[in-house]
Amino acid sequence: MSSNNKPAEIDQDGSFKRQVNRFTAPFGEELPVQSGKYRLLWSPACPWAHRAVIVRKILGLDTSISLGTASPLRPQIDRVDWEFSLDKDHKDPELGIQYVSEVYFNSDADYNGRPTVPVMVDIEEKKAVNNDYFNLTTDFETVWAPFHKEGAPDLYPEHLREDIDRWSDVIFHDINNGVYKCGFAQSQAAYEQAFDRLFARLDEVDAHLAENRFLLGDFITDADVRFYTTLARFDVAYYNGFKTNRTLIREFPNLWGYARDLYQTEGFGDTTDFHAIKQHYHLSITINPERTEEKILPKGPDLSVWGTPHHREQLSRTKEKFQHKRSTT
Amino acid sequence: MSSNNKPAEIDQDGSFKRQVNRFTAPFGEELPVQSGKYRLLWSPACPWAHRAVIVRKILGLDTSISLGTASPLRPQIDRVDWEFSLDKDHKDPELGIQYVSEVYFNSDADYNGRPTVPVMVDIEEKKAVNNDYFNLTTDFETVWAPFHKEGAPDLYPEHLREDIDRWSDVIFHDINNGVYKCGFAQSQAAYEQAFDRLFARLDEVDAHLAENRFLLGDFITDADVRFYTTLARFDVAYYNGFKTNRTLIREFPNLWGYARDLYQTEGFGDTTDFHAIKQHYHLSITINPERTEEKILPKGPDLSVWGTPHHREQLSRTKEKFQHKRSTT
Repeated sequence: MSSNNKPAEIDQDGSFKRQVNRFTAPFGEELPVQSGKYRLLWSPACPWAHRAVIVRKILGLDTSISLGTASPLRPQIDRVDWEFSLDKDHKDPELGIQYVSEVYFNSDADYNGRPTVPVMVDIEEKKAVNNDYFNLTTDFETVWAPFHKEGAPDLYPEHLREDIDRWSDVIFHDINNGVYKCGFAQSQAAYEQAFDRLFARLDEVDAHLAENRFLLGDFITDADVRFYTTLARFDVAYYNGFKTNRTLIREFPNLWGYARDLYQTEGFGDTTDFHAIKQHYHLSITINPERTEEKILPKGPDLSVWGTPHHREQLSRTKEKFQHKRSTT
Repeated sequence: MSSNNKPAEIDQDGSFKRQVNRFTAPFGEELPVQSGKYRLLWSPACPWAHRAVIVRKILGLDTSISLGTASPLRPQIDRVDWEFSLDKDHKDPELGIQYVSEVYFNSDADYNGRPTVPVMVDIEEKKAVNNDYFNLTTDFETVWAPFHKEGAPDLYPEHLREDIDRWSDVIFHDINNGVYKCGFAQSQAAYEQAFDRLFARLDEVDAHLAENRFLLGDFITDADVRFYTTLARFDVAYYNGFKTNRTLIREFPNLWGYARDLYQTEGFGDTTDFHAIKQHYHLSITINPERTEEKILPKGPDLSVWGTPHHREQLSRTKEKFQHKRSTT
């Protein structure tokens, strides 16, 4: 796979079908919840990894789970892997590996999927134990609670879980993965279908956010984290690179204020590396590796606008952005 | 040239240097001004050709100079030419040629530049006689006056010529050709220099247009035509394809109303083919032909916004958009 130019995740009709995660053993059951046992590998480019890093930061899990950061740039044009080329000697300082794929092969010598981030690695064994990005944040929010920092918010309150899961599902199919379906489609019809679904959904969520500060009301939840990582990449990468060019996020009446509200919250903006995102999507994307020959990095857009006032507080009945556990019913 | 993938117009430092026009004999001097003698070849994709077609329409030269329309799509990936593939049997019905290059070779068997549009062709001889896009519109506006329609406006009034020429020069280097310098640059430094100059100039013109309905005041002139053809291509093509992604034209406070004001004027919107423009720049561009393998046409942006009210009339002291000859001093 890693030395194969042909995309393995393209269906007969030209549409993109994301691979299934290989390592999905849940924490708290098969995998023990233990401080210092795991290292989370990510790259700031990747929206799926970014969500785990945001939650880790907000909940204070950074003292229990260490973090290894891979470069946003693929090691070579024809090698779809993540490399620790930002570290000394191109090796992760804790695991001593050069490529993320190594922990996948340590777990399964016959692994033939794409080596992805986020991946939780057993530090002693140097083995991938969980790359289940869809459930990783809720694992952090629930079974990892014993290691949350004092006063950590509840991003997944029990009474809202059904609603949060419903939002997460919709956002995943039409938006988070929807932009990839646009960008990786290999037929005009598959692309246009994904494009229409993406913008219909964004319009719908934009209308919802006219009266709700966050997706679930007054407080930030796991659903907002999942949505945010796509919004943060939209104008700088997807609009150009994935042809999602109907409307920029900064042109939506409500989404734009909402995105800035999150960006200006600890855990979001401070883990958002726009430069890495631009490098990855414009210079080093996964499915059309031949395009990496074009070495010019777009200079725009202006990123300073992310820091401008959004006035979303007006929609809220409280000054707090987060719901804390002691106030959960 | 036409079967050569290597760009011939790239300088040592990676910057784009547009070729010099080969056929520049002026009308009214070497070339006789005569109704029915010439055919103007264009493609709706090309901004340089579009300006000549706008002026031809506004002045009513369409009865004196016929028009041949080449496809926006290059004939093949490695063939930088224009083909009459929209016509029956892929041939221009009046000249009987399949490719624009044919009239270039008929004029000069050793022609080794890029065959470009616009090109004025002597119909009887089937020879290119003038491809001087920079001076073609002012030729139409001056020495072609005997064939202007009754009541045709003066797009190049004598008392404004110095100012118009100054605008045209600035707009050419930093904007019309500036977007190409961004899109075709083969070094990061050359790209960024062109990007900075482009947006500095757009900001400057945007400020000028806060108090002026058109570049030269109350009336449309040749300078507006030249500016318009780049503005009409900006959001649909350059922003994505040429990496001019700081700001969309529809985001500029004054440029956007100005662009719509022109678009909604006869000769502008009715000669603007957004679909052809998108096809050309996204599927079939000149300098990086390998990118044409990507066959997906971006669906956005929403083009209906071009028809929305612009309220630019408020800046004008007159109801007329055009200055007519009888009122010229």
